[in-house]
Amino acid sequence: MWYDLAPVGRFSATGGYRRFAFGAAELECRAWFAAEARRRGMAMEADGNGNLWAWWGDPAAGNAVVTGSHLDSVPDGGAFDGPLGVVSGFAAIDLLRASGDVPVRPVGVAAFTEEEGGRFGIACLGSRLLTGAVDPAVAAALTDADGNRLDETMAAAGSDPGLLGPDPDRLSRIAVYVELHIEQGRAQVDMDAPVAVGSAIWPHGRWRMEFRGRADHAGTTRLDDRADPMLTYANTVLAARKKARLAGAVATVGRVFCEPNGTNAIPSRVLGWLDARAEDRAALDRVVEELETATLQRAERDGTEVTVTRESFSPEVAFDAALRDRLAGVLGGVPVLATGAGHDAGILAAAIPTAMLFVRNPTGVSHSPAESAEMSDCIAGVHALADVLRELAC
Amino acid sequence: MWYDLAPVGRFSATGGYRRFAFGAAELECRAWFAAEARRRGMAMEADGNGNLWAWWGDPAAGNAVVTGSHLDSVPDGGAFDGPLGVVSGFAAIDLLRASGDVPVRPVGVAAFTEEEGGRFGIACLGSRLLTGAVDPAVAAALTDADGNRLDETMAAAGSDPGLLGPDPDRLSRIAVYVELHIEQGRAQVDMDAPVAVGSAIWPHGRWRMEFRGRADHAGTTRLDDRADPMLTYANTVLAARKKARLAGAVATVGRVFCEPNGTNAIPSRVLGWLDARAEDRAALDRVVEELETATLQRAERDGTEVTVTRESFSPEVAFDAALRDRLAGVLGGVPVLATGAGHDAGILAAAIPTAMLFVRNPTGVSHSPAESAEMSDCIAGVHALADVLRELAC
Repeated sequence: MWYDLAPVGRFSATGGYRRFAFGAAELECRAWFAAEARRRGMAMEADGNGNLWAWWGDPAAGNAVVTGSHLDSVPDGGAFDGPLGVVSGFAAIDLLRASGDVPVRPVGVAAFTEEEGGRFGIACLGSRLLTGAVDPAVAAALTDADGNRLDETMAAAGSDPGLLGPDPDRLSRIAVYVELHIEQGRAQVDMDAPVAVGSAIWPHGRWRMEFRGRADHAGTTRLDDRADPMLTYANTVLAARKKARLAGAVATVGRVFCEPNGTNAIPSRVLGWLDARAEDRAALDRVVEELETATLQRAERDGTEVTVTRESFSPEVAFDAALRDRLAGVLGGVPVLATGAGHDAGILAAAIPTAMLFVRNPTGVSHSPAESAEMSDCIAGVHALADVLRELAC
Repeated sequence: MWYDLAPVGRFSATGGYRRFAFGAAELECRAWFAAEARRRGMAMEADGNGNLWAWWGDPAAGNAVVTGSHLDSVPDGGAFDGPLGVVSGFAAIDLLRASGDVPVRPVGVAAFTEEEGGRFGIACLGSRLLTGAVDPAVAAALTDADGNRLDETMAAAGSDPGLLGPDPDRLSRIAVYVELHIEQGRAQVDMDAPVAVGSAIWPHGRWRMEFRGRADHAGTTRLDDRADPMLTYANTVLAARKKARLAGAVATVGRVFCEPNGTNAIPSRVLGWLDARAEDRAALDRVVEELETATLQRAERDGTEVTVTRESFSPEVAFDAALRDRLAGVLGGVPVLATGAGHDAGILAAAIPTAMLFVRNPTGVSHSPAESAEMSDCIAGVHALADVLRELAC
């Protein structure tokens, strides 16, 4: 199963995956999903938002237990982020069947559309549409980097964009959603834990920071006469790291544009984006407020101006506490972890009880070809997911 | 004269000039040059490198006194950088003629090709070709951002690219070159000096700095597990400023690229370019060496790798000392200034005695639409240039 999927959308130059929603490689992953469902005699359906569902039992019976994840990737992403949860879902069903377990409730495997936001820019788009967290008219008009609209792209892939939007009937038939995912960090390495249970998703936000100065000649303008926004930007990058460290949060400036971006030109403008996440809202607010204060002080010294604009914000998601404790117990008291990454499980948590299982990542790296997992840990993850599905559905 | 030239190649959106060698706007400036020569009965010629020459008297007589500058601009440059020297050359001749002065040696006004390197990437290209500082075969094959070759571009503009290259005969007929230029800084503002004489061009260089780290997820990777090259870059930007300040030099990082440049991605690679200039070679070397040391120390702390490569270097140019003192004397003891900017006069200094006059710039800004000069200072510059030409040629 894993070997069928491994070469799809992999770029040999980087070793990374480029599986973008409804692109050729991702459509191949969808065909793989359909084949895996067919092979197991599971009924497969795509909902109006392009999310795929494979059913063991009749979903119309309701009270279903669903597991799954996503098949799309970030640009040059790793092999595990997303697919591991889908592959493990099918594999866990194989284990249950092999041991003669019979579910008393329908069991589903799901693959959600555009979880990474790698093509149309909104992360968890499929689960957001399903739960009504995104306006379907807004989603339909989203465009990718080449100007292709989502609705036209879906139509070309055989999906009716007129069906985009919330699907409360479908959600009402699902009792619980459990997503298995590769860990995106090294906490489980330090705890020597192949499998862990998720407790929460940290609140996180993105801020656009505009640093304005005065374009001038790099060779002739005395240092005292400059208003160089690159200095204010650089100080902000370092301050973000420091404020985050002191608060036990994370902060990253990974995107920058400079104008006019000439070697012998003092920039007129630098744009940087801050990604910041923390355990709770208060800690996150503190990091961003302290950073803004430090940046404005530095700007005064540099003779520059700074505007900080929040572009997006996702509040903290606490997974269902009873479900979390029940799963940790079933799995023999595995560790319980919060994560800084968004997931479809975090979106669905607003509508139904959800939980997450994490599989150890030896490098801790994700969103990169260097993302990895030991085969033995992947198998441990499948067994844990099977135990969870048995507990919840059999 | 000035009003004819003012609208040519000016972009209303920015207020800046975009006059790129042999582009439509620059060709219009060349036509303006020809018209000004014709209006004064001066013989006009273009040499094999596209440099324009207008003559009062017969240049074949030799021992000529030439003034001038350039007509091209950086992208969104100011109105004065270049054209002020050419306009002032013609205006100074008008003054001499009006006062009945008669030169005993030929007097020329020159406009050199591609001084800014704004189209084909090599600054002072016309004067470098003239003096043999650039291989004509290399120059012919230079391409602009749209892939147009220099030789084809010159041919399309009616200039035979087969004539590119050194022209020692032409140089041997020139006894002295004096370039008038807008000051690119505020030194003359502080000295309350409308006009100054140039002493030297600081040595300067450009270094490409590559910062390599490890791509990773901005939300989930603990700070301690990161190898974020943006931190090393940011520290280098601030260190460059500090080292330059301590050495009385200038250093600028005005160009940056980041990969993959995603808001939620720790970068794998950041590229930055350092422009550094100092009064003498020893001071410049010290700034760059100290910066490299500081950067490598920071890289070790960040877990990143840094490679610094020198991309270009221009040694110090000292203008002819006797000529410099003579001109400062003729002008009543005006200040003598070094500059951090390259000029055709700096290139020609390798072949013939050269000097420069600077006109006060109230903002100190150049290479920007904000570059400016008071009309009264421009007139003072024309009078100073006329005094110099009278001293040297009449």
